[in-house]
Amino acid sequence: MAILSDLGTEILVPACAIVGIVFSVVQWILVSRVKLSPERHSLSNSSKNGTAEYLIEEEEGLNDHSVVHKCAEIQNAISEGATSFLYTEYQYVGIFMVAFAILIFVFLGSVEGFSTKSQPCSYNKGEMCKPALANAIFSTISFLLGGLTSLLSGFLGMKIATYANARTTLEARKGVGKAFITAFRSGAVMGFLLAANGLLVLYIAINLFKIYYGDDWEGLFEAITGYGLGGSSIALFGRVGGGIYTKAADVGADLVGKVERGIPEDDPRNPAVIADNVGDNVGDIAGMGADLFGSYAESSCAALVVSSISSFGINHDMTAMFYPLIISSIGILVCLITTLFATDFFEIKAVKEIEPALKKQLIISTILMTAGIAFVSWIALPSSFTIFNFGSQKVVKNWQLFLCVGAGLWAGLIIGFVTEYYTSNTYSPVQDVADSCRTGAATNVIFGLALGYKSVIIPIFAIAVSIFVSFSFAAMYGIAVAALGMLSTIATGLAIDAYGPISDNAGGIAEMAGMSHRIRERTDALDAAGNTTAAIGKGFAIGSAALVSLALFGAFVSRAAISTVDVLTPKVFIGLLVGAMLPYWFSAMTMKSVGSAALKMVEEVRRQFNTIPGLMEGTAKPDYATCVKISTDASIKEMIPPGALVMLTPLIVGTLLGVETLAGVLAGSLVSGVQVMLNVVVRCVLQNRPLINSIFSEPGFKIQLSKKQDSGFFRFIVITTITTFLLFGFQIFLK
Amino acid sequence: MAILSDLGTEILVPACAIVGIVFSVVQWILVSRVKLSPERHSLSNSSKNGTAEYLIEEEEGLNDHSVVHKCAEIQNAISEGATSFLYTEYQYVGIFMVAFAILIFVFLGSVEGFSTKSQPCSYNKGEMCKPALANAIFSTISFLLGGLTSLLSGFLGMKIATYANARTTLEARKGVGKAFITAFRSGAVMGFLLAANGLLVLYIAINLFKIYYGDDWEGLFEAITGYGLGGSSIALFGRVGGGIYTKAADVGADLVGKVERGIPEDDPRNPAVIADNVGDNVGDIAGMGADLFGSYAESSCAALVVSSISSFGINHDMTAMFYPLIISSIGILVCLITTLFATDFFEIKAVKEIEPALKKQLIISTILMTAGIAFVSWIALPSSFTIFNFGSQKVVKNWQLFLCVGAGLWAGLIIGFVTEYYTSNTYSPVQDVADSCRTGAATNVIFGLALGYKSVIIPIFAIAVSIFVSFSFAAMYGIAVAALGMLSTIATGLAIDAYGPISDNAGGIAEMAGMSHRIRERTDALDAAGNTTAAIGKGFAIGSAALVSLALFGAFVSRAAISTVDVLTPKVFIGLLVGAMLPYWFSAMTMKSVGSAALKMVEEVRRQFNTIPGLMEGTAKPDYATCVKISTDASIKEMIPPGALVMLTPLIVGTLLGVETLAGVLAGSLVSGVQVMLNVVVRCVLQNRPLINSIFSEPGFKIQLSKKQDSGFFRFIVITTITTFLLFGFQIFLK
Repeated sequence: MAILSDLGTEILVPACAIVGIVFSVVQWILVSRVKLSPERHSLSNSSKNGTAEYLIEEEEGLNDHSVVHKCAEIQNAISEGATSFLYTEYQYVGIFMVAFAILIFVFLGSVEGFSTKSQPCSYNKGEMCKPALANAIFSTISFLLGGLTSLLSGFLGMKIATYANARTTLEARKGVGKAFITAFRSGAVMGFLLAANGLLVLYIAINLFKIYYGDDWEGLFEAITGYGLGGSSIALFGRVGGGIYTKAADVGADLVGKVERGIPEDDPRNPAVIADNVGDNVGDIAGMGADLFGSYAESSCAALVVSSISSFGINHDMTAMFYPLIISSIGILVCLITTLFATDFFEIKAVKEIEPALKKQLIISTILMTAGIAFVSWIALPSSFTIFNFGSQKVVKNWQLFLCVGAGLWAGLIIGFVTEYYTSNTYSPVQDVADSCRTGAATNVIFGLALGYKSVIIPIFAIAVSIFVSFSFAAMYGIAVAALGMLSTIATGLAIDAYGPISDNAGGIAEMAGMSHRIRERTDALDAAGNTTAAIGKGFAIGSAALVSLALFGAFVSRAAISTVDVLTPKVFIGLLVGAMLPYWFSAMTMKSVGSAALKMVEEVRRQFNTIPGLMEGTAKPDYATCVKISTDASIKEMIPPGALVMLTPLIVGTLLGVETLAGVLAGSLVSGVQVMLNVVVRCVLQNRPLINSIFSEPGFKIQLSKKQDSGFFRFIVITTITTFLLFGFQIFLK
Repeated sequence: MAILSDLGTEILVPACAIVGIVFSVVQWILVSRVKLSPERHSLSNSSKNGTAEYLIEEEEGLNDHSVVHKCAEIQNAISEGATSFLYTEYQYVGIFMVAFAILIFVFLGSVEGFSTKSQPCSYNKGEMCKPALANAIFSTISFLLGGLTSLLSGFLGMKIATYANARTTLEARKGVGKAFITAFRSGAVMGFLLAANGLLVLYIAINLFKIYYGDDWEGLFEAITGYGLGGSSIALFGRVGGGIYTKAADVGADLVGKVERGIPEDDPRNPAVIADNVGDNVGDIAGMGADLFGSYAESSCAALVVSSISSFGINHDMTAMFYPLIISSIGILVCLITTLFATDFFEIKAVKEIEPALKKQLIISTILMTAGIAFVSWIALPSSFTIFNFGSQKVVKNWQLFLCVGAGLWAGLIIGFVTEYYTSNTYSPVQDVADSCRTGAATNVIFGLALGYKSVIIPIFAIAVSIFVSFSFAAMYGIAVAALGMLSTIATGLAIDAYGPISDNAGGIAEMAGMSHRIRERTDALDAAGNTTAAIGKGFAIGSAALVSLALFGAFVSRAAISTVDVLTPKVFIGLLVGAMLPYWFSAMTMKSVGSAALKMVEEVRRQFNTIPGLMEGTAKPDYATCVKISTDASIKEMIPPGALVMLTPLIVGTLLGVETLAGVLAGSLVSGVQVMLNVVVRCVLQNRPLINSIFSEPGFKIQLSKKQDSGFFRFIVITTITTFLLFGFQIFLK
């Protein structure tokens, strides 16, 4: 048996989750110390000895009072826009969730005709398991729990982001280091809330369900998989809806404002400027959070359900059973320490220190986590045990499981760094692309496309190696814990990711409030580092999605009682071919949606510039609300067809062509989706940044890393929606 | 037994091939009637009653003598450039072919220690087969034969194309119909020469080899597969080398000439203009020919080798054995009749009739061919027979084989028409993209990308259905004959394809010779139709490549004695993942090559404009030869790394990771390659045409279908090289 007792596990997991929540509340309090009310702030400030520093950096000739007031006003508009969008989105998502919950209940309950009698277990032969009706009820509950947790985490993340953006702007007056800490702390609030909430709710749900299920662990953990499906459902809509919103607003604002009218980015005269800033929060914060939460919940559930039919579950070894949760718990502690390196142990003094500081976060968390995993594998696992492997039981050692989780963790780091290498202006790829622009846009397009394709190579090898290692050691359980390993540092990953849009917003607020160029330069520097590190975050999201999808694929195959998926049979092969096409189809839909929404936005912005007198002169205010409404309506409407494709494909293929073809479709869309995603993430960063610049502003052309729109306006939507596609497509057929 | 006797087959196949060759010679003679020497032409012209027509269309105010002289001079320069490039290319390819031939010989011969003793057959147990040494010798010979036939066909195609371009220009003075017929006849020369040569050489080789092999058909047809490998090898280098050449010259000429200097396309002052026109001939004519020849030879060989170990081969039923060759023979006759519809039965009078006429070619040939296949399947096959299917024999009826071939044929037509739908300006996709340009390049990029992705959907379903039908009926043999069905109308397909670059060249010559705008408008109209139909041709190339690759995949799996390729094993799965990445890697290499070569070209053209006095004023002649040399050197040098990737991947993966992983790699690159290719073909047509226009010329922007460079400068290289990749990657491990 394991070194860690069951009681120890029962204490450790919730304790770590609560530590995470407390830590994020502390961060929130620290951020809230930056006051948005000018009078009190000046008072408290002058009463301390920080006055000198403050005055040095103060606005030149501008009235401090009115600037702070303006910032508060703009922040308010953004926050209101984001809240109202999320409420609208949640209404539709709520209807969907309820309908889907009913469907799950009816579908699962009808298996045994809603009987309340116990039945023989499907894996643990000879034992009696709880009735299908119970499974239906508890699956439905965990589905709703997963959805609600995701919604709550996304919503809180959006709240802190819209709370922190103006504060980051104000702190930028004191120095780049102060602004960085404010933005990063706010990102950390989001990261820790999500990781800790996800873990805590899952833990509580398992313990509550156990009151009913008792010794029927097989039934218990099967019901728990609803939690993952709930998370994925929200991810699907959060990503697609939020993605369409943010990109439509972004393109609309830039095309008319910057290109046609020649006014700066984030200029308050631009009617779409509020919608644009709202978009960063609903897409990049709430959407990204929902996405990673989905992967996290899915991989935990996939590992747990395999555990329950392996020796852990059969022997009722609770500590080993909770191995996936313990890893996540330790992950929270590791990320906590890592965060202190950015906010407390070191201080950022110059712009060029920002990107290395963010990169250091990844390295530190990975190294600490490796030790953490080793420790957990040693104390929480028996030295030898068996893992369910497509019908048979496979003997696994604890060090092998350590290697599985470690392979996932380090593959994540490699993917992150390769993505960074290809998208950062400090290395040759971006410099080469910039160089190719000497001869114009055409050679630039070729070079950008080539690099985008090239960037796929190493990440694919990294994923392949981690799959090979974890699959060889512990079959599908290995894959699931490898995904968990990659996601174990999710709190840090999300902090880095959320930091980007917050800095972006801060820059926008500085511009709109009419603050000096020096402030804008600082926020731009923060934002530039955020753009590159955001690409790293996307690399993580893709890698973990690939692993999770594979684990779910394994679960699907086991459940469908398929013993081989043979490429040499026509059914599987055409499935593979059609499946490989699906990511393209899905992307076509989402991009068309962005295009249509952007068209409407452009027309509205043009209309306002043409019909509102005094708008260009700054004497009249634009109608921000209409633009917000256009983005909201378009994204709500347009998220339906891609959502339907993802949900209906497995149902239609499975029903019409059978499970073998479906297995082929799932495998095909998995391998092709990963390529499409990785390719798009780098190519769009590389290509749009210079290309769009060269189209819009200056034919002579110079890479400007600090401009927001450069980082690719469809990158976001394509990658993240495909991630969701993969996850959701697998899950839906499992239920 | 079949209705057609063995003697009948022995007569039918070579007769059809010879008819094809004679027909193409006749076409060549008809083209040569257009004289390039002005004096004689005027004389012969005034002596007939065609004078009136001729004079009406004659150049306004320009000296006829000097115009014709100039055309001849330009044609000469293009022809010389193309010939010299092909000679250089063939030198390198020749060295490679010899080295590779030696390798094949040593590799195959050493299997049995170069023994000259007969050995038991591997499939036809109990019989004695010829020694491995014989197999090595004859495989090597057929490899070289395949390579030589491909080279010869490509070279002759280039010759007729450079012979016909100026003649098309001159005929354009008489009317668009005359010019069309000249260009189309020249395309037909290429198409028929290739199809007939390929068939005839293969037929002769089989009959000569049979003198030695006698009754050992298993050994005979195994040796014959070298023919396919030879064709694929040339395709690899022809496509990559020619593709890099043409696109580097194209981008270089347009970027400096059109964009920076504002001179028209094909202006004689542009130093890269000859290189550009040479590129069309070496890339789109010689390269395309080699590519389709590769597919054609591979599918014939794949079908023959499966036949030889099926009941046809075991029972020595020669007519049934030659079923693949008989289909190709009938295909030549069908294409012959089809060609007459374009050149003799109807006459084109207006510009808008060109595209429908080309489309009609496809429809007519497909309908006639369907009847042809039915007839062949009835007379050449027994009503019931067995086909080798991964170790067992499967019973197949003759009508089932008809359906296999027909499925391939019609899938080709569907793919062609979908490609046309997405790339022609008469339908909504292109119009939508054009419409999206109202709001600027950004929305245009989004819409173009979305449509490119969308265009993949229907072709993938068409391929999937034909795979399912043919695989279910006749296993891998079914797939091979489905590919042959798609390629049975290759003569017509190639005629349409080659017609494009010839018209393109004709326009260039009109511009360079200083002919009037009316002539240029006519050649532009021819070229525009050619661009869209060229996209159709590429659809065919991709579809047939997918089928052929699958057939080769089947052959590989049989040979490697793998019974299942199970996606659920880690070895296969990581193979799938890595394989799906390879097309991206390969594309990255080829595009980087194009980019580097284009950079050099741009610099050279700029240098000439800056240093040669009087160049812009038209008083000094540019140094065409240096530009031709840059393209030649770059493409020769740059074709090595992608070639190495294709050839080394199967060897390295197979040696290090074993055959299961290799099977996964091959399947992965097959399914992913097809998507990448189809996506790129449409997207680039859609996107560059408007996008590059919008970058280069007019921000207000209007779709101009008649401009050459618009049709996508990397479309070509990506698709076609991947096609080759698929074919070659499979073949190399088989030998």
